[in-house]
Amino acid sequence: MDGTTARPTTRARSWWGWGWTDAHPDDAECVAMGALLPGTLGRPLPVPRIRDLAIGAPAVEPPPSLAHLVTADPADRAAHAMGKAYRDVARALRGKPGRIPDLVARPADERGVADLLDWAGDHRIAVVPYGGGSSVSGGVEYRGDAHRAVLSLDLTAMGRVLEVDTEGRAARIQAGTLGPSLEDQLRPHGLTLRHFPQSFEFSTLGGWLATRAGGHYATGRTHIDDFVQSMRVVTPAGTNSSWRLPASGAGPSPDRLFLGSEGALGVITEAWMRLQERPRHKASAAVAFTDFHAALRAVRALAQSDLAPANCRLLDPGEAALSGAAQDGCSVLVLGFESAHEPVADRLARAVELARSHGGRYDGSGAPGPGGAPAGDAAVGAWRSAFLRMPYLRDGLVRMGAIAETFETAATWDRVPGLIDAVRTEVGAAALEATGHPATVNCRLTHVYPDGAAPYFTVLAAGRGGDEAALWDDLKAVAVEVLHRHRATITHHHAVGRDHRPGYDRQRPEPFALALRAAKGALDPRGILNPGVLVD
Amino acid sequence: MDGTTARPTTRARSWWGWGWTDAHPDDAECVAMGALLPGTLGRPLPVPRIRDLAIGAPAVEPPPSLAHLVTADPADRAAHAMGKAYRDVARALRGKPGRIPDLVARPADERGVADLLDWAGDHRIAVVPYGGGSSVSGGVEYRGDAHRAVLSLDLTAMGRVLEVDTEGRAARIQAGTLGPSLEDQLRPHGLTLRHFPQSFEFSTLGGWLATRAGGHYATGRTHIDDFVQSMRVVTPAGTNSSWRLPASGAGPSPDRLFLGSEGALGVITEAWMRLQERPRHKASAAVAFTDFHAALRAVRALAQSDLAPANCRLLDPGEAALSGAAQDGCSVLVLGFESAHEPVADRLARAVELARSHGGRYDGSGAPGPGGAPAGDAAVGAWRSAFLRMPYLRDGLVRMGAIAETFETAATWDRVPGLIDAVRTEVGAAALEATGHPATVNCRLTHVYPDGAAPYFTVLAAGRGGDEAALWDDLKAVAVEVLHRHRATITHHHAVGRDHRPGYDRQRPEPFALALRAAKGALDPRGILNPGVLVD
Repeated sequence: MDGTTARPTTRARSWWGWGWTDAHPDDAECVAMGALLPGTLGRPLPVPRIRDLAIGAPAVEPPPSLAHLVTADPADRAAHAMGKAYRDVARALRGKPGRIPDLVARPADERGVADLLDWAGDHRIAVVPYGGGSSVSGGVEYRGDAHRAVLSLDLTAMGRVLEVDTEGRAARIQAGTLGPSLEDQLRPHGLTLRHFPQSFEFSTLGGWLATRAGGHYATGRTHIDDFVQSMRVVTPAGTNSSWRLPASGAGPSPDRLFLGSEGALGVITEAWMRLQERPRHKASAAVAFTDFHAALRAVRALAQSDLAPANCRLLDPGEAALSGAAQDGCSVLVLGFESAHEPVADRLARAVELARSHGGRYDGSGAPGPGGAPAGDAAVGAWRSAFLRMPYLRDGLVRMGAIAETFETAATWDRVPGLIDAVRTEVGAAALEATGHPATVNCRLTHVYPDGAAPYFTVLAAGRGGDEAALWDDLKAVAVEVLHRHRATITHHHAVGRDHRPGYDRQRPEPFALALRAAKGALDPRGILNPGVLVD
Repeated sequence: MDGTTARPTTRARSWWGWGWTDAHPDDAECVAMGALLPGTLGRPLPVPRIRDLAIGAPAVEPPPSLAHLVTADPADRAAHAMGKAYRDVARALRGKPGRIPDLVARPADERGVADLLDWAGDHRIAVVPYGGGSSVSGGVEYRGDAHRAVLSLDLTAMGRVLEVDTEGRAARIQAGTLGPSLEDQLRPHGLTLRHFPQSFEFSTLGGWLATRAGGHYATGRTHIDDFVQSMRVVTPAGTNSSWRLPASGAGPSPDRLFLGSEGALGVITEAWMRLQERPRHKASAAVAFTDFHAALRAVRALAQSDLAPANCRLLDPGEAALSGAAQDGCSVLVLGFESAHEPVADRLARAVELARSHGGRYDGSGAPGPGGAPAGDAAVGAWRSAFLRMPYLRDGLVRMGAIAETFETAATWDRVPGLIDAVRTEVGAAALEATGHPATVNCRLTHVYPDGAAPYFTVLAAGRGGDEAALWDDLKAVAVEVLHRHRATITHHHAVGRDHRPGYDRQRPEPFALALRAAKGALDPRGILNPGVLVD
């Protein structure tokens, strides 16, 4: 999460699952994981092969002037067919991925993006912008048949930091820059974007902007929205270029219309981003709670204090057990503080004290604390390792025919406890009914605010055999109903994509839908940009 | 600025000038002020009288069902004809105010707002939403002749705090609530919105939201945008009601489209706003600098530190002299810290030390410091008194035929020094050429960011006799050219209104203009909402 991981360039990305192929669990690991979840398969589904997909010739050919930007290579097309949600992996494993795009384009500059959009508009070709491909909400695939062909517009050939303003701590960065490369290019300047979503290694600046990504940090500067000075967005109606400003009150923010537009209004090509000094002081601790609701009150008190923890993750007992942070039925609050300027031990001590005043137990000795929770670094380290490895383990479970997925939301404090209880109860019951086996529904808080929190749920359940994606859709529909009933957002930082459209359509105010549809009509009159996302 | 000022209900608001009539400088004071500015009149222009305006009968009459919400009283209509910009006051003093609205409506609830919009739409009546009427950018007047009549929609009958969530620190507040009343209603709960624009006493929550107001505080939570949990906005196409959420990543933010929409997309009727605990610890200090550019560097260092001063106002020598903070040609940095939780003396001391390391001089003894600047509380108090009295003194100067106006902007740090120098030089030269007398062009920084600052300019100049508004328009056009050349925003927190349209139209990216125009067409298809603002 600090961007310093060594990345041999010879590693291969998986076309069907998360991340690097060499980091995937092997068959034996899959079997071992599956054994922990009753009702899963006895042996793993085979790793799917591209040649089994029988990918045909593309429905269109690019004009000679664009041919050098475009490929029809089947492997490339297969790798751009979907994101990395559970249902994407499950579909790939069953040999039924989403529609394979006809072509993949990799423009090297803004001119190339504009030319490709012009060509696509002239020929009714759907354009699906693609950054790192880590969408977990169906954001990078095409569903439907209203277009003549589908072009996956991969931005990763635009992966450079173009300018750095060290005095004003900002950089002009191309949208296709992947997280590690972005930090590598900033490091010589002593600066960092300090934006570390869980997908960091496999996602791009443009993807973060288009989806309003949330970073790793629990409070303060963590949403990508707040780091934007200005953006350039290529639309079929021209290029939107906002001024580089620290703040402005001149009408509704132009950038805020494109932040979260998920490729439906234009293609983000670059942005001036606010940077920070690299933190030099860090401290962390884990506090155990026997009462999850008391822990929620502790977190609220912390969020409403001036302490501003960089990390303030509350793991419920199931999540704590899963990550190795605690095995005794306790909830664990993982606290972290960071500063570029001054030691943070004092703030950590005050935060721990505040947590203790709400019933938390902390033993700073490094040994397991009195309540059985490993103290301090042990729990923090366990949680952190599990966090980074989680998406790979998920894919191993999926190979065992299991449901293994997450979803997240946010709500005001008055609704948080009831919401979490209801998701656990109702999604758990639905999974039991659908599969005949008890399911695991865990929760952690990933981001906290003075006025609410973002609960993040993990669902682990047996599959039903053969059509895991449909089973998940049923369970997710139950979850969406609970969220809606509690007025909890359909997504806090995973974006809407296609998977969340039903919930989004119910949450989005109708006049805003009218405005957004009108804006889309003005900017994308031929309806080629990421069709199916946000508005029709 | 802390909302505790006693407000006798018998005081009368001025229809043509700032604030309370009993706070206006008398003729002798006007003459004394005028004497300081060569080229002004020998005696003040008379206070204008409503009866001299010869206000005619309204062009329309409301239907019986709405008659109880509407008045055609000439005094009421005159008071709703304009905001309180210099050019508004100057026009009123010359007996040429903006177009007098035909009617003033004061709906008591959202239903009333919707009914009035329906009626106005059916009869081609322009609707100008009106909160406290403190616009300084032509935001609350009608210019043009495309409508059959003009209705000023005064929201102040909707002035209640409807619900308070003390656990989640938020309140549901009606849009027409004026600043002092808002704080009065929150005080029993121990909470505060802590949003104190200079217009606080004469502006409303709805006005702040519609114009993206900036509060008094220099860093951190100061923009009204960041306090919004959810909003209700009545549009001709229906009521936009967003969910109450601490954060959401579900598409572009609906609220951000209406924040800054200046009444052109809908009428904001209420909002759930994030609140804070009332600060209990405060400390302030003033640091003097002989070199303004060194002071700029000090402010940048402070803005990029973790110290987060509540106040970090840099007054240039002219501004320091005008406010009484220093009389020796020094620049003065006014620093303030606040916290609800812990003493702030240490943070203040570190901030002062940082300022000193950039050449600042500070003598904490309470006597004038070695550089001649009054130290600590004296300078802070002088500046604060001047700040609150400033709009009244402006009106006194206007009665002496003077130009007395402010404008503000924001830019990244690399542009700030050159921008300030260019505004001083070029606006000063233009004023000299136009009036034959030297003008005063002062600057202070009102808000500071890690990546830039918001310079705020005061222009004091002789008039030209008879048409001060036109003279100011010429000077402002010079200023706007300088801002544009330096890519500094046309407004940081004064809004666009009608006065800033030319600059705004050049700054706003063209694709965003297309989107905004389309959104306006969808929400206000008959074009009745605040015509002339933002888009045509």
